Amino acid sequence: MSHGSGGRVMAQLIEELFVEHLGNKFLAQGNDGALLPTPKGRLVMSTDSHVVSPLFFPGGDIGSLSVHGTVNDIAVMGAEPHYLAVSFILEEGFALADLKRIVVSMANAALQAEVFVVTGDTKVVERGKGDGVFITTTGVGVMPEGITLSGDLAQPGDKVLISGPIGEHGMAILSQREGLSFDSPIISDSAALHQLIAAMLASRAHIKTMRDPTRGGVATTLNEIARQSGVGMLLQEHAIPIPHSVAAACEFLGMDPLYVANEGKLVTICAAQDAEQLLAVMRAHPLGAQAAIIGEVLDDSNNFVQINTRFCGRRIVDWLSGEQLPRIC
Amino acid sequence: MSHGSGGRVMAQLIEELFVEHLGNKFLAQGNDGALLPTPKGRLVMSTDSHVVSPLFFPGGDIGSLSVHGTVNDIAVMGAEPHYLAVSFILEEGFALADLKRIVVSMANAALQAEVFVVTGDTKVVERGKGDGVFITTTGVGVMPEGITLSGDLAQPGDKVLISGPIGEHGMAILSQREGLSFDSPIISDSAALHQLIAAMLASRAHIKTMRDPTRGGVATTLNEIARQSGVGMLLQEHAIPIPHSVAAACEFLGMDPLYVANEGKLVTICAAQDAEQLLAVMRAHPLGAQAAIIGEVLDDSNNFVQINTRFCGRRIVDWLSGEQLPRIC
Repeated sequence: MSHGSGGRVMAQLIEELFVEHLGNKFLAQGNDGALLPTPKGRLVMSTDSHVVSPLFFPGGDIGSLSVHGTVNDIAVMGAEPHYLAVSFILEEGFALADLKRIVVSMANAALQAEVFVVTGDTKVVERGKGDGVFITTTGVGVMPEGITLSGDLAQPGDKVLISGPIGEHGMAILSQREGLSFDSPIISDSAALHQLIAAMLASRAHIKTMRDPTRGGVATTLNEIARQSGVGMLLQEHAIPIPHSVAAACEFLGMDPLYVANEGKLVTICAAQDAEQLLAVMRAHPLGAQAAIIGEVLDDSNNFVQINTRFCGRRIVDWLSGEQLPRIC
Repeated sequence: MSHGSGGRVMAQLIEELFVEHLGNKFLAQGNDGALLPTPKGRLVMSTDSHVVSPLFFPGGDIGSLSVHGTVNDIAVMGAEPHYLAVSFILEEGFALADLKRIVVSMANAALQAEVFVVTGDTKVVERGKGDGVFITTTGVGVMPEGITLSGDLAQPGDKVLISGPIGEHGMAILSQREGLSFDSPIISDSAALHQLIAAMLASRAHIKTMRDPTRGGVATTLNEIARQSGVGMLLQEHAIPIPHSVAAACEFLGMDPLYVANEGKLVTICAAQDAEQLLAVMRAHPLGAQAAIIGEVLDDSNNFVQINTRFCGRRIVDWLSGEQLPRIC
């Protein structure tokens, strides 16, 4: 508990763990907040609390996830992620070795994502009042001139693209949590998408919307966009990339991969005439190698997202109601 | 749990609670993050997780506290607080009526502090894995040209000022938690200091450092500044404003008010020749009415903070070691 008290032990924790691994010229200022240069452009700000359980999973951990999640939220708006503020809520008795592993993972993810952790906070709660560690990451990015992406810009005729196979993050977490094992283990897709997105924006394709389909999966993300834009969508099931291992695990557990969380994927709505060109740009990037056009935007005052199934049927892909996978991120 | 799942129930919660009470043109964008105007000046960024227990206390609650805490962290750097990102970690079963009360309190505090809640997140953890609600607030502010405040600028001869009576927040929380009652109840001093600070900065007094003495109290804050600046300090106990109720409660509980948290107070280091003028400016503001000069900065390679006691003794006011008051903010 004394690590959260504001006293000497907390000062030691901050110096030895956070400053050592996450250190940079901004964090080194050591004031209540960080003083940063005047940005050249509009600001973008996004925040996410991470409560993923388990803390360590195939393909990542809460440290890397908390960087990727916030970097992606900034990047899908079309902005360049610059700065992160990170706040830890630790449960009394949480192993410092685990905390160090998480902080090192966070530092590596920040380095790869080209962002600085500029300020932070640590609180400690009693045993049984938390769950190991929760991490809230807030990102600030800068939006270059001329870029306008928003969830309300999708129009009938636009194409719907996905940057790669879906469902890996959610099923990796769930497999780990439930102690399931499959022939080929499922690895989280957790990754920072800012470079893929930068390449897409540089292509000059007319992109309307980008979103990372995390909690609630592709189905929820597309429903959100459909509602914001006042349109419908029609997906082609055969076109949606789903790894065999994810499909098998979903079938076994009675889940639909369309609702399973991703942490390194991107849904994009793009003007039809630019869709093939954009697809080629995405496929040229390692994180978009298996990108696909999975559907199109329709005129529909009900804002339904529908899907043509493999068996030539058509069904509505509704909002997720109730919980599917708690604590997935 | 479904309120955190990303689906329809979560969308309802966001619309009915957060957008209704906290709504503004930025939050209304409804994307993964908020798009904000290009700021005129350097950025300041600060973050704090709030885990205060109990959630409601005399003088405030976790909602108002989470706004004041972050607004103050931005303001003490000399910057104007502009935007807040807010993230909730809810424990399954937490009463929506309590959440609403907290969100309304947060909205009022944001209105008074002249900041916008521009983006947010909600996660839900299982019963027994959290404690009602934790709120992480991240603030972004803008630093006008010509202002340089930092913890490493204190010099021997400078004066140490406090903006008012100390110890109220910590003792209000502790009294509530322990079920103690006193003749005059202790009310938290939780407040946004940005207007008091703006008046102080406008005075042109040569201010070196400002800090809000929260966790660890005035003692810890002054030790931090002494270490950062490589100086010592000498306080005059008789000059430090301590409310009778706080003094009585501290004596009863064996605590030292110098280590008790404040949430609406300010410690300032100021050049000696400007100290009286600055004091007058502070006293002219409601939140600084009982401001006082409580000591001065010394040349001391040990960076000790010392105090001349009421009984003509002198003792070292050391760093807080171990915990004094967990979950005070």
